[in-house]
Amino acid sequence: MVRYQVILAYDGTEFCGFQRQANARSVQGEVEAALLRIGWQGRSILAAGRTDTGVHASGQVIAFDLDWRHTPAELLAALNANLPSDVAARRVQEAKPGFHPRFDALSRRYRYQTFCQPVRDPLRERYAWRVWPPFDLARMQTAAAGLTGTHDFAAFGTPPRTGGSTIRTVAQAAWQPVPPDGWVFEITADAFLYRMVRHVVATLVAIGQGELPLDVIRASLSDHPQRLSLAGLAPAQGLALVEVTYPPDDLEREG
Amino acid sequence: MVRYQVILAYDGTEFCGFQRQANARSVQGEVEAALLRIGWQGRSILAAGRTDTGVHASGQVIAFDLDWRHTPAELLAALNANLPSDVAARRVQEAKPGFHPRFDALSRRYRYQTFCQPVRDPLRERYAWRVWPPFDLARMQTAAAGLTGTHDFAAFGTPPRTGGSTIRTVAQAAWQPVPPDGWVFEITADAFLYRMVRHVVATLVAIGQGELPLDVIRASLSDHPQRLSLAGLAPAQGLALVEVTYPPDDLEREG
Repeated sequence: MVRYQVILAYDGTEFCGFQRQANARSVQGEVEAALLRIGWQGRSILAAGRTDTGVHASGQVIAFDLDWRHTPAELLAALNANLPSDVAARRVQEAKPGFHPRFDALSRRYRYQTFCQPVRDPLRERYAWRVWPPFDLARMQTAAAGLTGTHDFAAFGTPPRTGGSTIRTVAQAAWQPVPPDGWVFEITADAFLYRMVRHVVATLVAIGQGELPLDVIRASLSDHPQRLSLAGLAPAQGLALVEVTYPPDDLEREG
Repeated sequence: MVRYQVILAYDGTEFCGFQRQANARSVQGEVEAALLRIGWQGRSILAAGRTDTGVHASGQVIAFDLDWRHTPAELLAALNANLPSDVAARRVQEAKPGFHPRFDALSRRYRYQTFCQPVRDPLRERYAWRVWPPFDLARMQTAAAGLTGTHDFAAFGTPPRTGGSTIRTVAQAAWQPVPPDGWVFEITADAFLYRMVRHVVATLVAIGQGELPLDVIRASLSDHPQRLSLAGLAPAQGLALVEVTYPPDDLEREG
């Protein structure tokens, strides 16, 4: 029996989210069904994070124990042959026994895609939030920079368990242009509160559109004003979990 | 009654194609249903081209006559309010009476997206063909350049009506890199044969992968060898109709 770490990519559109649910199609449910077909006898896979309904991933990390008599590359092929077209295993590696994709994670990186257009665009809105009127990038960039560091992010989300800490350390938060009209936000932190990225993006866009003052980020990190909820939640389809990092000795060899 | 020209964008994944069919979901059917809800009394809209099952468009052009008492901008908004999320009107303009999006077209431009990866990628394969092994770009580029000019393209497709001409003039055909691993093919011609772009792309990729000799394009344009069918058909999801051009006097004013 070996513990495997697998990097998963999925299009979240047709899923109720990552986590298995009784009467809805989940990423976890599809992966477990694929594993059962190749001889897995476990009860539940482990995952780095539970992405919400409609949220995508290019770098979700899962782990499970499996008695597999072939190479990790053959496990990758077997998984992909048994997964539906909107989920794929991108890489399979052997991990140390006891490796836990959530508790061992050092950092998570999310990407949020937006574009500024006045009219609907069916070829782009599956993976991005269409924003109109256009925003002032300099304002959003300045506001984003205020997120970095260790702060109490209670104004932007709820902790995974009631009464848990709302202190998080954001290593990086910035917008990058994707000409002609796209803007991508990337944020890296040790961990995130529930729906934190979507609250942050909605707030930054509202700042960029002049709906909220530039200093609302700084104020919220010291005072947790409830008014931040005015900015709402950026839609799920713009968001993707792109990378989770681990200490190098969590992994054994690549396959 | 005014004739309107509308630029349509759609995600072709969930459609049987552009053309209305009895028991399948078509782009034409959805657009006509939206038009009927805003007072249209016609029987059939006109279109620049009939895209196949699964083929996308960012620049399909349609036309219809409508008694509309508001501005073209309001017609755009009314159409989009009545269209499903995978079809949108991107622009509405008044056209000259008798304007025909297919017969009046001067040129059509198609785009075909590919990327080179050994493993499935659910976030990219809705709009691109995943190609493996990687191809030799210089070979594909040289082969593509051989397509330009006026030739008999019978080896690459069938004419719209039996016995019709297979002579077409390709103004431009080239690959562009989309780092790190994507390649986009664009081709512009006066008109295309049925499935011509997908046959051309499959042939160019086979040349790039060393499966077909470099001179097969030139040979096929003089001899129509049947063996070209060996390269098959590139999958529909990589293809999009991106632009159709018209003489400037076909349009009256913009809305």
